[in-house]
Amino acid sequence: MRVAGLISGTSLDGIDVAIVDVGSSIVPVAWSSVPYPSDVRDAILSVSDAIAHIGTVARLNNLLGELFAQALIQTCQHSGVQMDSIKLIGSHGQTIYHQGKLQSFCGFQIASTVQIGESSIIAERTGIPTVSDFRQGDMAAGGQGAPLVPFLDYFLFCDAELTRIALNLGGIANITVIPPNATLQDVIAFDTGPSNMVLDGLTQAVGLPYDKGGCEARQGCVDEVLLKKLLADRYYEMPGPKSTGREQYGKKFMDCFSKLSLRDGLATATELTAQTVVEAINRYPGKKDVIASGGGVHNTYLMERISCKLGMPVKTSADWGIPIDAKEAIAFAYLAWCCIEHRPSNVEGATGARKSVVLGKLTDPFSRCH
Amino acid sequence: MRVAGLISGTSLDGIDVAIVDVGSSIVPVAWSSVPYPSDVRDAILSVSDAIAHIGTVARLNNLLGELFAQALIQTCQHSGVQMDSIKLIGSHGQTIYHQGKLQSFCGFQIASTVQIGESSIIAERTGIPTVSDFRQGDMAAGGQGAPLVPFLDYFLFCDAELTRIALNLGGIANITVIPPNATLQDVIAFDTGPSNMVLDGLTQAVGLPYDKGGCEARQGCVDEVLLKKLLADRYYEMPGPKSTGREQYGKKFMDCFSKLSLRDGLATATELTAQTVVEAINRYPGKKDVIASGGGVHNTYLMERISCKLGMPVKTSADWGIPIDAKEAIAFAYLAWCCIEHRPSNVEGATGARKSVVLGKLTDPFSRCH
Repeated sequence: MRVAGLISGTSLDGIDVAIVDVGSSIVPVAWSSVPYPSDVRDAILSVSDAIAHIGTVARLNNLLGELFAQALIQTCQHSGVQMDSIKLIGSHGQTIYHQGKLQSFCGFQIASTVQIGESSIIAERTGIPTVSDFRQGDMAAGGQGAPLVPFLDYFLFCDAELTRIALNLGGIANITVIPPNATLQDVIAFDTGPSNMVLDGLTQAVGLPYDKGGCEARQGCVDEVLLKKLLADRYYEMPGPKSTGREQYGKKFMDCFSKLSLRDGLATATELTAQTVVEAINRYPGKKDVIASGGGVHNTYLMERISCKLGMPVKTSADWGIPIDAKEAIAFAYLAWCCIEHRPSNVEGATGARKSVVLGKLTDPFSRCH
Repeated sequence: MRVAGLISGTSLDGIDVAIVDVGSSIVPVAWSSVPYPSDVRDAILSVSDAIAHIGTVARLNNLLGELFAQALIQTCQHSGVQMDSIKLIGSHGQTIYHQGKLQSFCGFQIASTVQIGESSIIAERTGIPTVSDFRQGDMAAGGQGAPLVPFLDYFLFCDAELTRIALNLGGIANITVIPPNATLQDVIAFDTGPSNMVLDGLTQAVGLPYDKGGCEARQGCVDEVLLKKLLADRYYEMPGPKSTGREQYGKKFMDCFSKLSLRDGLATATELTAQTVVEAINRYPGKKDVIASGGGVHNTYLMERISCKLGMPVKTSADWGIPIDAKEAIAFAYLAWCCIEHRPSNVEGATGARKSVVLGKLTDPFSRCH
């Protein structure tokens, strides 16, 4: 079955689209990334973990539905894939709030998450049934709702002899640990800490979209005092499952870098990412592959720092035929397929859920009775 | 198939639950209304058409999921209906924002709506697949997303010889006009204006939950000047499809009543409802039944004013076996059943949609592969 996956990550770069054929294996057919217009990006930032009028959130939800649909249509046009060959869409949407931990609220203990990008609009504009809202099901089952990509990592990378560690360098960095010959129950995954979100935040504060290849970071000096202070966050030593997000790395966090030059700030933030990633990986001994994906793989300096601290080369998902920029979008295509197949797709060792559940909500507005 | 319907209306009274057997007819099995705790009601009001932190909205979404699930479980316990006899839930949720008209937003024309009450939590707590978010599909197809109950009205009331007018007196009053021998395409429906929302707003401002039976209103005098001013709102003369909501009858609207005594305010608001309802009904000539439902039916004075102005008695849905307080909840049970049967269920003459679509999103977290 041909399935499209759509996601925009916490970096707010834009909409990642992947079209895959799902069966006994997953074969990428086309993929692309469609940047957000700057006014849309600003609008998303204005409501993310913020105070806003509910009407603005509502309009943004529907606007992103339009843009997600357009991104898929555009990807088909550019790649020559026929829209009507796609039978299903899995849309993660855009997270504007995520709190995986329980909080007291009106006498209940509540965790919560909000992804916007209206599935009814995506389905209507594309003519394709759309699965969305994947995180809620896991949270209803007691999980933190993230990360969800480990289910794909297990499918793609599980090996008879090696521990496989899938490392995603997105806005947030996370790892999936797949022991040799693992069952799904053996898989562990968690967010290790910030990655591109902080690096991009530093460059964007001076008007640059990002530090291409990590060139600026490479020329900076690490502020060891600040690094030590940042590493003292108890999040990093907490055992998984655990998840983090824009809430933790917002304005207050970014203010820590305000006294450093751009280069020194980037060098320090790069070191924070590399060190927290490597410390997390080193908890798992034995022979292993580290398989990176996500936009951070393009950051040569960050990849070097991780390899250097690990003492071994880092592979990428492209070595397994999965484009490094498309793995997350592919994951939501795969999760959508699991939804309509009624297959549970949360990884309890990743989210902390009490049980395995089928994730997603199916929006299928197309009549089958006339 | 046994299906439960759940809704909380704009009056914020609480959660209406209905359990029905759906087949060639709809047979009510049990129904009840479960009031919101006052802190929950306050929390909903604080985010409705208002500025709020997205985290509060997110927590409230999940909290209402818990409460909707509890309301169904409690209804089963009190009525003796076995939970596991219920195969499907249709949950409308709680509207906290609705703007059926298109608005410019980042270069797009966007209508939008938000219903909260997380379906993943309802499904998980009850063990029953849950259809939710019914309005979005209609809006994606160009409709105003409301009203949706006319689809049930057509199924229940369509007659070979009489025009049937289903009148719902909820927070907002609306009518469904079903000409003799109508096809679904002949059905027209629209919100006529405010009803209990304004009446309850007036009593609640002085600490009374509502004006039982309209006793206070009956003792008041209509302020004809204010009534004339309120009736001048061009909404009332607009042709349908049209919909309205809390946005239009918020604080600014309520301030119009500030100089009147409670009784005179209630009398004037009752007259506003009666007059706008009757003017809407009188647009449709010929022999007809007016079939009322909703909490406003308990307001004897309001019903009298409507009958008096109509010049004929008003019947109620109870005459057709449908409890007056349960019709809306029954509608969402029926719409959920239509969703999983892949039957379109919007009424184009009610919402203004360009086409008929299957409404709702299916949350079905239960594995069928192990």
